[in-house]
Amino acid sequence: MSNPRSAALQFAQKNNARFLAELKDFLIIPSISTDPEHKADMDRAAQWVANQFEELGLTRVEIFPTEGHPVVYGEMLSDLKDAATILVYGHYDVQPAEPLELWTTDAFDPVQRGENLYTRGASDMKGQVMASIKALEAVLSTGKSPISIKFLIEGEEEIGSPNLEDFITNHQKLLKCDFALNPDTGMIGAENPTITYALRGLAYFEVRIDGPDHDLHSGIYGGVVHNPAQALCELIAGMHDENGYVTLPGFYDKVRPLGDEERIQLGRLPMGEDFYLEQTGAAALWGEKDYYPVERVGARPTLEVNGIYSGFIGEGSKTVLPAWAMAKISTRLVPDQDPDDVHQQLIRYFEENAPETVSFKIVNLVGSPASISDRNSVGVQAMQDAMQRVWQKKPLFRREGGSVPVVVLFKDILNIDSVNCGFSLPDDNAHSPNEKLHLPTWNRGIDTLIHFIYNLAN
Amino acid sequence: MSNPRSAALQFAQKNNARFLAELKDFLIIPSISTDPEHKADMDRAAQWVANQFEELGLTRVEIFPTEGHPVVYGEMLSDLKDAATILVYGHYDVQPAEPLELWTTDAFDPVQRGENLYTRGASDMKGQVMASIKALEAVLSTGKSPISIKFLIEGEEEIGSPNLEDFITNHQKLLKCDFALNPDTGMIGAENPTITYALRGLAYFEVRIDGPDHDLHSGIYGGVVHNPAQALCELIAGMHDENGYVTLPGFYDKVRPLGDEERIQLGRLPMGEDFYLEQTGAAALWGEKDYYPVERVGARPTLEVNGIYSGFIGEGSKTVLPAWAMAKISTRLVPDQDPDDVHQQLIRYFEENAPETVSFKIVNLVGSPASISDRNSVGVQAMQDAMQRVWQKKPLFRREGGSVPVVVLFKDILNIDSVNCGFSLPDDNAHSPNEKLHLPTWNRGIDTLIHFIYNLAN
Repeated sequence: MSNPRSAALQFAQKNNARFLAELKDFLIIPSISTDPEHKADMDRAAQWVANQFEELGLTRVEIFPTEGHPVVYGEMLSDLKDAATILVYGHYDVQPAEPLELWTTDAFDPVQRGENLYTRGASDMKGQVMASIKALEAVLSTGKSPISIKFLIEGEEEIGSPNLEDFITNHQKLLKCDFALNPDTGMIGAENPTITYALRGLAYFEVRIDGPDHDLHSGIYGGVVHNPAQALCELIAGMHDENGYVTLPGFYDKVRPLGDEERIQLGRLPMGEDFYLEQTGAAALWGEKDYYPVERVGARPTLEVNGIYSGFIGEGSKTVLPAWAMAKISTRLVPDQDPDDVHQQLIRYFEENAPETVSFKIVNLVGSPASISDRNSVGVQAMQDAMQRVWQKKPLFRREGGSVPVVVLFKDILNIDSVNCGFSLPDDNAHSPNEKLHLPTWNRGIDTLIHFIYNLAN
Repeated sequence: MSNPRSAALQFAQKNNARFLAELKDFLIIPSISTDPEHKADMDRAAQWVANQFEELGLTRVEIFPTEGHPVVYGEMLSDLKDAATILVYGHYDVQPAEPLELWTTDAFDPVQRGENLYTRGASDMKGQVMASIKALEAVLSTGKSPISIKFLIEGEEEIGSPNLEDFITNHQKLLKCDFALNPDTGMIGAENPTITYALRGLAYFEVRIDGPDHDLHSGIYGGVVHNPAQALCELIAGMHDENGYVTLPGFYDKVRPLGDEERIQLGRLPMGEDFYLEQTGAAALWGEKDYYPVERVGARPTLEVNGIYSGFIGEGSKTVLPAWAMAKISTRLVPDQDPDDVHQQLIRYFEENAPETVSFKIVNLVGSPASISDRNSVGVQAMQDAMQRVWQKKPLFRREGGSVPVVVLFKDILNIDSVNCGFSLPDDNAHSPNEKLHLPTWNRGIDTLIHFIYNLAN
């Protein structure tokens, strides 16, 4: 067979049982990053990934210690002139398995039932990491890789990647590449390959309202003092207008408008009103009245109350007029909003609207901008074509409402875009009991990544 | 000496040192009703009060056990035709003394410094109970009492009087009287004898808003679901209008208007803007714009948020869109508002204003109506004259913003009004460390009660 692409695909098909056996071997390791008792398992999982890289014959394999769990790095540099270089991101850590009693079979005993393989980490994201490694193995089985591939597999994603920014900052030369592949964002459904081309940013605040200088008796002082809980409610109520728009002054000034073509693409997504009603269990939907739900969660900025507290919240009744109230308030941002701008807008909102009866304090807890990839970039086009070859249909282009910190770090520090995709499904129970991997989709994922590599060849 | 009133006053003056010594003897007992370890002290305090009654030669003295701490009952029935009968209310239990390290001297070691006697319970209200007993002793020292006096001294006031309603209900004949004297409501200042002629009622609710059927990721769903914390804030914000009035439908319908004469009397109280600013530490006052502060806290109904909770309120940031939110909301009521009406008004407010995006649930926790005494009643007139004789000035007439449950129980079960007064001062540190009793005021209190008894003679 002279066509390496076909040969690689055939290799993957022939070795499917072994790939699955190796995945199970990886899944058995309870690499729970948040639990200090699993420190040895974390090191074992990192070593396991490094061993895979060694067996692949990568030109460099290294386990980098960090303040927390180690980063596994591997690279296969092509000696072809002008070969593209991609950086594959992944993580070998998994969520805790609790509550254990809700698992049908043991959380770290990979059991196949029907088309699914059940284990903690199967979908998020050991299966995705293995799909990337096995795709490269298939490509290498035919000879050399047509592109340079670097792997950065961290062990702290499930605890917020506390040491990743430092690692990337200190290894910019090592990580130098044309763009990143992040197979951690999943698909909309088994028959809907998906590319996530935009992620919302996040600006997260804690707001505190102070009224009287101590808790008061609501009978003795109710009626002369502005209740801080009430004042906070009034301020929060004013943060949206009657059409669901955020009222912070200037909030929409830098929002990049949605183009007609993009709205048509987003309209292809099978995420209408019914989808969101079913997913959330809400009695009715809500939001900016001029946008469809799928646009509101992905392509429009939003403001949410993540938490609120004041006074007495125990059983029964206590007649307190609380001295203070607080709320956690966060905004999801889209291009080209700046988290620092939003901080200033929130301050201005309070300055303009907080009554003289109370004082306010705002703490800025998190700020990261939105990210968006050019849907016509080399990487996205290569992935679109790869998916189309495997599924015989164009992938869906999704704007994700959440934030993926690593995508922001890659953009900020390395100045590279990420191709965000993956072969996990919405019903894979990531972060929940009975997490599973849909094996037919996983196999298609390996094929897709083989095509992706060849699509990037010169 | 032929005038019994003068003789009684002289007796009190002559026996002042002994009265004080006996008060100290009472104060030494740590009768902390909330602490099971002090059960024996509670019984000791009850017995101590009963002994005082025995020594006074009351015609009946009895300690009634309850499900909790006992009630001490004593009565001195007059054989005079048409003699008035009054019921003196008091409690022998005290608040816990914690935090102990903030006491200058031991909490249960009565120490005199300057004009004050420092002990837990000195002001609230063993001192007040003793003033009543010693006034009667002084009267009896001159012969017979001109009126019938009954004492109901309970041991559970500081824990919400859980067994008092049953006791009163089961002893209506025993407690039969013309009106009650409740010396537990204190004075505005040492030179301002005070009669509290009205107490606000209370209707207390827990409100819950449910949105999505589980906590959502604020990035993935923010923008399509009405955040229940936000919806609750919007509903709470709407409960007052821009002039500080409560917007529950019909809330003011049954509110008895304040008469001009009453407003003038309330205007005499030394409780202007500055007083409330200083007491509360608030930056500015707030409330119904057509009423003075002292009217707003005592003579007008109010609505307060006593507590509010939703979502994540810990350290740092969590991007949750909470499934539900709750608030504790209470109203203070004035004559002739009905707590059950207010419950219905709150339900109607939610029915009319809660959006279809969420559901709501309201639990009614407490409901008691306001009480108001006729300022021209025999009892109030007798107390007004007594105070005027001692202080050489008319007492102030105050409407208290809080609720005193026993006053409501007496009204509801025995159908009697209470004369609410007392000789405690605002700076007595009731419920706080270094509680004290102002002894000159206490002595004036004994004199006042002697006059009060003679003023009620036929």
